[in-house]
Amino acid sequence: MIENKNQSKTQVEQLGEFGLIKHLTKNFSTTQSSTLKGVGDDGAVLDFTGDKVVVSTDLLIEGVHFDLAYAPLKHLGYKAIVVNLSDICAMNAVPTQVTVSIAVSNRFPLEALEELYEGIALACNYYKVDLIGGDTTSSQKGLIISVTALGKAQEEDLVYRTNAQDNDLLVLTGDIGGAYMGLQVLEREKQVYLVNPNNQPDLSPYDYIIERQLKPEARTDIKQLLAELDVKPTSMIDVSDGLSSEIMHLCTESKVGCNLFEEKLPLDPQFINTCEEFNIDSTTIAINGGEDYELLFTVKMEDYDKIKGNPNLTVIGHMTQESEGVHLITRDNTKIPIKAKGWNAL
Amino acid sequence: MIENKNQSKTQVEQLGEFGLIKHLTKNFSTTQSSTLKGVGDDGAVLDFTGDKVVVSTDLLIEGVHFDLAYAPLKHLGYKAIVVNLSDICAMNAVPTQVTVSIAVSNRFPLEALEELYEGIALACNYYKVDLIGGDTTSSQKGLIISVTALGKAQEEDLVYRTNAQDNDLLVLTGDIGGAYMGLQVLEREKQVYLVNPNNQPDLSPYDYIIERQLKPEARTDIKQLLAELDVKPTSMIDVSDGLSSEIMHLCTESKVGCNLFEEKLPLDPQFINTCEEFNIDSTTIAINGGEDYELLFTVKMEDYDKIKGNPNLTVIGHMTQESEGVHLITRDNTKIPIKAKGWNAL
Repeated sequence: MIENKNQSKTQVEQLGEFGLIKHLTKNFSTTQSSTLKGVGDDGAVLDFTGDKVVVSTDLLIEGVHFDLAYAPLKHLGYKAIVVNLSDICAMNAVPTQVTVSIAVSNRFPLEALEELYEGIALACNYYKVDLIGGDTTSSQKGLIISVTALGKAQEEDLVYRTNAQDNDLLVLTGDIGGAYMGLQVLEREKQVYLVNPNNQPDLSPYDYIIERQLKPEARTDIKQLLAELDVKPTSMIDVSDGLSSEIMHLCTESKVGCNLFEEKLPLDPQFINTCEEFNIDSTTIAINGGEDYELLFTVKMEDYDKIKGNPNLTVIGHMTQESEGVHLITRDNTKIPIKAKGWNAL
Repeated sequence: MIENKNQSKTQVEQLGEFGLIKHLTKNFSTTQSSTLKGVGDDGAVLDFTGDKVVVSTDLLIEGVHFDLAYAPLKHLGYKAIVVNLSDICAMNAVPTQVTVSIAVSNRFPLEALEELYEGIALACNYYKVDLIGGDTTSSQKGLIISVTALGKAQEEDLVYRTNAQDNDLLVLTGDIGGAYMGLQVLEREKQVYLVNPNNQPDLSPYDYIIERQLKPEARTDIKQLLAELDVKPTSMIDVSDGLSSEIMHLCTESKVGCNLFEEKLPLDPQFINTCEEFNIDSTTIAINGGEDYELLFTVKMEDYDKIKGNPNLTVIGHMTQESEGVHLITRDNTKIPIKAKGWNAL
């Protein structure tokens, strides 16, 4: 189904390290005013005068974070950028630049890397971030992608994990769980494919959740939305490792407790249907699945009127005193302690 | 000699990803005034008001860039930081922060990672740079280290690769070739060790060149030295991939040619002795060996008096018109075209 069917194969060694970087980045241009010098020297040069700089970095390893049997390289390149931009968004900052380093084993021809960089370029263009540097090298096994993202913000706009207060509302953007169930569908189809490579699966009933897994988006829109609503979150984090895990982070860092309401969890119908098909409890997946790249934040109670009814935002709970602990309140009003079981690449 | 003899072994999985990051970074504090928020949120927050920001990134892969049979983990951690700081120095900037991401296979116990981070801490303390973030994950094979370094400079102090002029002098800091020959000695001793693990080699005749390989230093001193001498280079690069390769970069980017004089190459006596012992031509190694992390730069002819006789700086050649090409002028005055044969990790 989804295998890389490159006909033409050029050995990467033919280009050499510098030739390879040049080749892969030749179509990238810079558009951010803060980028003075991008790829091509010992370092990039940036100018953030007047803004604070936000930096975040992530490592993606084949066989740990992705499986090339169903993740097309172009999507993977796109996703590698998105997951890093999501971290910048979670500081309520605007992503501006990325560096991308890759290590590849000799099983990857040049054409495969070109596909990867097509996805990287697509994300850079869509999110208007500049590729300003990186490194290419060989690996002993598989594909390794390391991305560092930079962003900018006015100091007064930055939101940390540490300032959630008792009684603050807990708010989530978008919906959750889809990326995890998309992965389950892809894993199932991979097994089918291994048994019968001629089988052409119909993935259309799963299009949304598969896209959530293979081509997630970063919520770069939320900073502006919050500004328009005149709301400044008291704390914020991105939901990369699962809702329960991220709630625990906010609670630990802010020294508060939390009540999360099962009935409030924003779930897509396709996600719910797929959970039923797999006979899995949707709430369990919604709070423990990862990779949704939505933003989770807290706002003051008095900001409720400003955010209620907004289709991008759902109030899913509220913060409590630390001594009350962190709980899921189920539909039948049972109080279950939340433990961080989130997705863990380690 | 060189094997990791950890007695106590703690499985990394016991800590989990967040526990691991916290554990490994708990002794790191920040000292740079530009670091507002380091490890512990979705992103670090920096303030470079008044300065330009320089960013560089490198990926180090076990089996490609290092061999743990002879590179102690503490040295490796130190070196991973140094090679990135060297890139910042090569822009004539001051290194200020680093992010460090690691991926490890399950053969590495916690104690091994602690050793690696001891070296990282040592380098951060020595060079006064702040560790501000990173990622830890598992790998399918071996150890992978990804470092991004940030630095600062006034715009007028930045030096690129692009502005070398005809007649400029070509200047090198320190001496070269040592790191490569240190590696040859270590490779030889590894083979001896594999045959007879009880053999205790005497490495003292090679102490300088082995240190050049295992624990190189970044020339953070050169920016200040040049300021004191009132010299601004016209172009600069660091010598990580070999002198010939770096000269080619300067010439290509600046559209000039170069005459490099064999008799001027600054070589340490221990390096020369070891080349003789290995029956290798020292000039070949000096211009093609890599990993010396010295700085190579060009200055205007009229600055000669300011730099001559300085023990840190050696004039090794001069730039020519592009049409004259890039040549090594040997001791017997033969003109040999230089091709970039530098060390290539690809």
